[in-house]
Amino acid sequence: MPALTDPIPLLQALVRAPSVTPETAGVLDILEKALTALGFSVERPVFSGDGSYTVENLFAIRDRGGKRLLLAGHTDVVPPGDLEKWTRDPFSGAISDGVLFGRGAADMKSGLAAMVAAIARMAESGADEAGTLALLITNDEEADAINGTDKLLAWATERGHSFDFAVVGEPSATAEVGDVIRIGRRGSVSYRITVSGKQGHVAYPDKALNPLPALSRIGAALSGTPLDAGTAHFPPSSLQLTSIDVGNPTSNVIPAQGSLRFNIRFNDLWTPEALDGWVKAQIAKAEPGSAGVSVDRLGRPSRVFRAPVEGPVVLLIETIKARTGRAPELSTGGGTSDGRFIAAYCPVVELGLPGPTMHQVNEQVRIADVEALTALYEAFFSRYLKG
Amino acid sequence: MPALTDPIPLLQALVRAPSVTPETAGVLDILEKALTALGFSVERPVFSGDGSYTVENLFAIRDRGGKRLLLAGHTDVVPPGDLEKWTRDPFSGAISDGVLFGRGAADMKSGLAAMVAAIARMAESGADEAGTLALLITNDEEADAINGTDKLLAWATERGHSFDFAVVGEPSATAEVGDVIRIGRRGSVSYRITVSGKQGHVAYPDKALNPLPALSRIGAALSGTPLDAGTAHFPPSSLQLTSIDVGNPTSNVIPAQGSLRFNIRFNDLWTPEALDGWVKAQIAKAEPGSAGVSVDRLGRPSRVFRAPVEGPVVLLIETIKARTGRAPELSTGGGTSDGRFIAAYCPVVELGLPGPTMHQVNEQVRIADVEALTALYEAFFSRYLKG
Repeated sequence: MPALTDPIPLLQALVRAPSVTPETAGVLDILEKALTALGFSVERPVFSGDGSYTVENLFAIRDRGGKRLLLAGHTDVVPPGDLEKWTRDPFSGAISDGVLFGRGAADMKSGLAAMVAAIARMAESGADEAGTLALLITNDEEADAINGTDKLLAWATERGHSFDFAVVGEPSATAEVGDVIRIGRRGSVSYRITVSGKQGHVAYPDKALNPLPALSRIGAALSGTPLDAGTAHFPPSSLQLTSIDVGNPTSNVIPAQGSLRFNIRFNDLWTPEALDGWVKAQIAKAEPGSAGVSVDRLGRPSRVFRAPVEGPVVLLIETIKARTGRAPELSTGGGTSDGRFIAAYCPVVELGLPGPTMHQVNEQVRIADVEALTALYEAFFSRYLKG
Repeated sequence: MPALTDPIPLLQALVRAPSVTPETAGVLDILEKALTALGFSVERPVFSGDGSYTVENLFAIRDRGGKRLLLAGHTDVVPPGDLEKWTRDPFSGAISDGVLFGRGAADMKSGLAAMVAAIARMAESGADEAGTLALLITNDEEADAINGTDKLLAWATERGHSFDFAVVGEPSATAEVGDVIRIGRRGSVSYRITVSGKQGHVAYPDKALNPLPALSRIGAALSGTPLDAGTAHFPPSSLQLTSIDVGNPTSNVIPAQGSLRFNIRFNDLWTPEALDGWVKAQIAKAEPGSAGVSVDRLGRPSRVFRAPVEGPVVLLIETIKARTGRAPELSTGGGTSDGRFIAAYCPVVELGLPGPTMHQVNEQVRIADVEALTALYEAFFSRYLKG
């Protein structure tokens, strides 16, 4: 095993495990081995049910009393998509010109590698003598997130664990490490709308009822109507159509049905219940006529949350200022993360790399950014745990 | 061989050959034997290639100078479908209560049987002394129609054959023989529009380019904009969206691309080339912005055609009036047929039985309708060829 104080070999090993949700492909074994070597007790709870697939998770703790800091993240990655568009194997972890390539390199295996390396460095410098560190890692953050962090937190709580503050290692920076702390997140809710008509031959449209004009108008209404203009701590809510699917292979048949899926990232002006009403209003505006329209929420919505700017958040701001000379932006932008689950247990921030290529082809991170994040983590974890 | 003047034994023999496209199952042998007995020279060209299967065809001609009348049709049938829903063997040709059952009984083996019997009756009455008759029969009208009528016409033309007027024996009547003459057909063209953006995470729409809002607006513009209000002989052109497909399984990824397919049935105000321009105008109206939009025609368009209401069409109207006491409706409705190919060579009409059960289980024809069609054919062929 290379020295754990260097995050890069660990990051390469993590990227080489093609852990597309919910396959672990050995990725948790790599982390278990590293954390065990650093003195952590590691458990690997597996959760299933509630309409989702089975998920492997990892909980590691090194209890030395004092402040209780939770480090959280995920090992799963989104699928690589069209392999032909990648210039390198998405699971190679290849390094070239100071950049490490691969699916998950940014989101968020580099965050995990930096956390482990920071802990290893604290052991070397003797900064790990006080305070309790725990790592809470799931292999399902990118997809359903039903059998991951949410259940793992409940599981840990049942076993008597509690935390004073949490850092999630998701990509949060804009241009360089430390330029942004995410102190909250918008909520997220996904929907499917199904429009039903009556199948028939294209030559005799009067004997059929084509559901696709209404489906198109609903898609246009949903995507063309702003939800709001943003609030003091949050950007405007945003709706993205994610798929429209009919699956009719023939050119002479009017299909009976089509469906449209979309996701809304919403700010503190909204609840999922209020959005249900807004969605129905857009459907009515699209005048579906005699086509049947059904609306379903997909999965569980995430509610909006935000950490107070005090105590550990102020310490983190000062640590960043001391290192970079600049105060970080306090942001609530970006996607959902498992921070939404942690927010119910303790204040939580997200602090990670810039991630401009996350979820895209040719996902990559700069080696220098992984190094800078490791150093920032080491500095903050040490100051916070010292008490 | 039973007397050819009776269409029913011939129709039974034709129905008993299970000639589901492209299997002939002996059906062309039956027609070759009958037409040879009536003094025709018969050839059996086989065509293949152009992305479709091999098809057997039949061309028969009895050249006595004068007017040149082409009779056209097809021997292939659509599959019987669920056999359990048929009350009789679909290839039995069983007769019961004045009705003949079987796949192809209506579409269109009865038309072929009536044509042959009409020719046999003309021989008996001596009405066949002047004028040239040709039969152009394919075993692929129901499926690809690539190696059938289209190539057979080119083949006959290369050999110096030409025609003054054509009758296709497709089921055309509404309630009784002679109530409708189809004097033309709308054209048909299918398109696929692909809208391309840039994949990304739903939480960061500014870093992606979602193609689905533009796709929805294009679908709404295409389906919501009338092409025309119809013409003297044709109903309004009709556009039907047939599928919209993205295939993005995840709720947190903005897809890179989506496609939309549609078919246009168009009247004599349009050509496929003019429709290309109209489609592009609708796309522009939908303001796709920086999304990439490509438009492809799918397959080969069918052009609109119409026989002029003069000469042979007027003679056919008069013949019907004299027999039924009523003028036929001149229709251009319904789906495409092989008439679209013949129209490039000479004026063509479709004149056949009522076909309410065509393509359905328990397809059937009334014996009386086959008799009436035979008599109408005999009267019209005689008058036209005497010409």
